[in-house]
Amino acid sequence: MTTRSYAIIGTGALGGFYGAQLQHAGIETRFLLRSDYEHVRRHGLRCDSINGDFVLPEVHAYDDVRKMPRCDVVCVALKTTQNHLLPELLPGLVKDDGVVLVMQNGLGVEDEVARIVGADRVVGCLCFLCSNKVEPGHICHLDYGYVRLGEHTADGRAGGVTARLQAITSDFERAGIEAIAVEDLRAARWHKLVWNIPYNGLSVVLRATTDRLMAEPNARALVEALMHEVVTAAGACGRMIALGFVQKMLDHTLRMKPYKTSMMLDFEAGRAMEIEAIYGNPLRAAQAAGAAAPMLKMLYRQLKFLDSNRQNAITAQ
Amino acid sequence: MTTRSYAIIGTGALGGFYGAQLQHAGIETRFLLRSDYEHVRRHGLRCDSINGDFVLPEVHAYDDVRKMPRCDVVCVALKTTQNHLLPELLPGLVKDDGVVLVMQNGLGVEDEVARIVGADRVVGCLCFLCSNKVEPGHICHLDYGYVRLGEHTADGRAGGVTARLQAITSDFERAGIEAIAVEDLRAARWHKLVWNIPYNGLSVVLRATTDRLMAEPNARALVEALMHEVVTAAGACGRMIALGFVQKMLDHTLRMKPYKTSMMLDFEAGRAMEIEAIYGNPLRAAQAAGAAAPMLKMLYRQLKFLDSNRQNAITAQ
Repeated sequence: MTTRSYAIIGTGALGGFYGAQLQHAGIETRFLLRSDYEHVRRHGLRCDSINGDFVLPEVHAYDDVRKMPRCDVVCVALKTTQNHLLPELLPGLVKDDGVVLVMQNGLGVEDEVARIVGADRVVGCLCFLCSNKVEPGHICHLDYGYVRLGEHTADGRAGGVTARLQAITSDFERAGIEAIAVEDLRAARWHKLVWNIPYNGLSVVLRATTDRLMAEPNARALVEALMHEVVTAAGACGRMIALGFVQKMLDHTLRMKPYKTSMMLDFEAGRAMEIEAIYGNPLRAAQAAGAAAPMLKMLYRQLKFLDSNRQNAITAQ
Repeated sequence: MTTRSYAIIGTGALGGFYGAQLQHAGIETRFLLRSDYEHVRRHGLRCDSINGDFVLPEVHAYDDVRKMPRCDVVCVALKTTQNHLLPELLPGLVKDDGVVLVMQNGLGVEDEVARIVGADRVVGCLCFLCSNKVEPGHICHLDYGYVRLGEHTADGRAGGVTARLQAITSDFERAGIEAIAVEDLRAARWHKLVWNIPYNGLSVVLRATTDRLMAEPNARALVEALMHEVVTAAGACGRMIALGFVQKMLDHTLRMKPYKTSMMLDFEAGRAMEIEAIYGNPLRAAQAAGAAAPMLKMLYRQLKFLDSNRQNAITAQ
C-alpha cells in the first residue's frame, strides 16, 4: 500500500479526473479549488467515466493553499496560462523530499516549476485525456486517460526511470489509469507535440474540428507538413522521432470521432490559449537548435494575434 | 482624338468605374452586364468619385456578348473566379488587331487570356483602386484609381513599351486616370503581390482589417516576413525588387485608413475568393524557380480550406 499523499492544484476536467481516480483507489488526495470550493466541500466529486461512474461524497477540499498539509506529490493541473500563480502555491505545499508532478501541455513547463522548487523535485506527466467539467465537482470522462511520466533534468538530458518515478507510476496504475514511466521526458513531450501543434493551432485559426481538417486535402497536407516540421525540430533538439510516427498520428486522427481540441474550446469560450507552452517554447527551442520551423512560427504568430484580440475585447468590456 | 472603342466585361466596382471614366471623357465604350442590365439600360451609370461625381444618363449596355460589335480594347474586369466564362466571351468581341486588357489581380492571368485570343493580343493592367458598387449602375469611388499597363509576352520576358500600349495608356490619362506604361508587366505584377499576398490572405484567415494587422506585433511581423518571401520568390523568377520596397509598403499601409481587402469582402459575403490568381499561381511560379515559399504555401492552403467550407456550405443549402 502507498503511503504517498497527493495534492491536486486545479480541480477541473483534468485535475478533477485524475484526483478523483486516485482517491477512489484509496490514495490520500487533497484538492485545491477556487470557484467550486463550496460545492465540492458539501457534495464531493462525481466522475462519469467510460471506465465506470462513481461518486466521492466526501473529499479533502481546500480553498486556501496555506491550510493544506505538505504532500509527497503535488499535481499541477492548471492550464499553463495560470502558471504565474505557481510561485505562491508550490513552495509551502511540497515536502522537502516530495515532487511536483507537472500535468501540463507543451514544452518547457517543467523548467518553470524547477525555478520554483528546484530541478530535482520535478517530474513531468503527459496526459492523454478527453474529459469535461460539466458542472462544479462533476467530471465527464469521454475518452483515453493514459499518462506517460518522466523525470525532469536541469540539463535537459534523459533522466531515466528512478524509484520515485516508478512509485508514482504505480499509484496511477493502482487508480486504474494506464501509466508508463519513460526514460526521456523531453522525447515524450516532442512526440506529443507532433499531434498537438498542427491540430490545436489549425483548429483555432481555421475554426474546424479534426475531422474537417482531415477531410479537406489542403488542410490535411498542412497538418502533415507541420507534423514533419515538428519532427525536424525535435531532431535538431536531439530527439529523433521515427518517420512512421507522422503517418501513425494521421491514421489515428482519421479514426477519432470529430474532436474539438482544447485550444479550440478555450478560444471559443474566450479563455486564454496555451500558446507559449505549445508553440512559443518549442519554436524557441527549435530556433536555438538551428531549425527555422517557418510554419510553426507562422502559426504561433497567427495564434498570438487572435489571442491579443481576445484580450482587447475583454479590456474593452 | 482616339478612335479606339472599348468594351467592359464585368460592369462592377472596377469595370464600372473605369468604363464610366472612359465614356465620360468621350471615348466610345460598351458595357456587358448581367443582373444590372435592365437598370443600366434605362438609367445609365452613376459614379460618385473623390475626383468629382457624374452621371451618364445613357450608355451602350448589352446583356449578350453576341450583340456587341467588335472592339479595339476589351477590358476584362471580372473577378478571376469568373474566368471560365472568358472562352465564350472574348473571341468574337475583340478585333483581329485589337487587344484584351486584363484588369485583374494576381499572376498568370494574362496567360489564361492568351490561350483564348493569342499572346500577341494581350495587355495587362494593374488597377490600384478602392471602389464599391453600392447599387445597380451606381459606383462609389473611395480612393486611389491609378493603373499600370504592360505588354504580355508568351515567354514571360519584358515586352517593352509599344505604340499600342502608349495609345491605351493615353486613353486612360485622357479619362482622368493616372496611367503609366511599364516595360515589364511581370515585374509590376510581382511588386503588387508584395502587398496583396500578406494583406488579402491574413485579413481573411485572421478576420482583421489592415490597421489591426499592423497594430499587433506578431501579425505585423508576419506581414513583413511574407513580404520578404514574395520578394525572394520574385527574385527567383528573375524580377528583382528593391529591399526598401517592403518598408515602403508597410509605411504606406500604416498611413491608410482601416481597410478591408477585396478578399476579405468576398469572404464575408460568401463569394469565391481569388485564391489561385493571387496565391496558387505565384506559389507555383516560385516553386518552379526553386523558391520554397513556405509561408505563402501555408497561407494558400489555409485559404483553400476556408474556401472549400464556403462551397460546402452552399452545396448544403
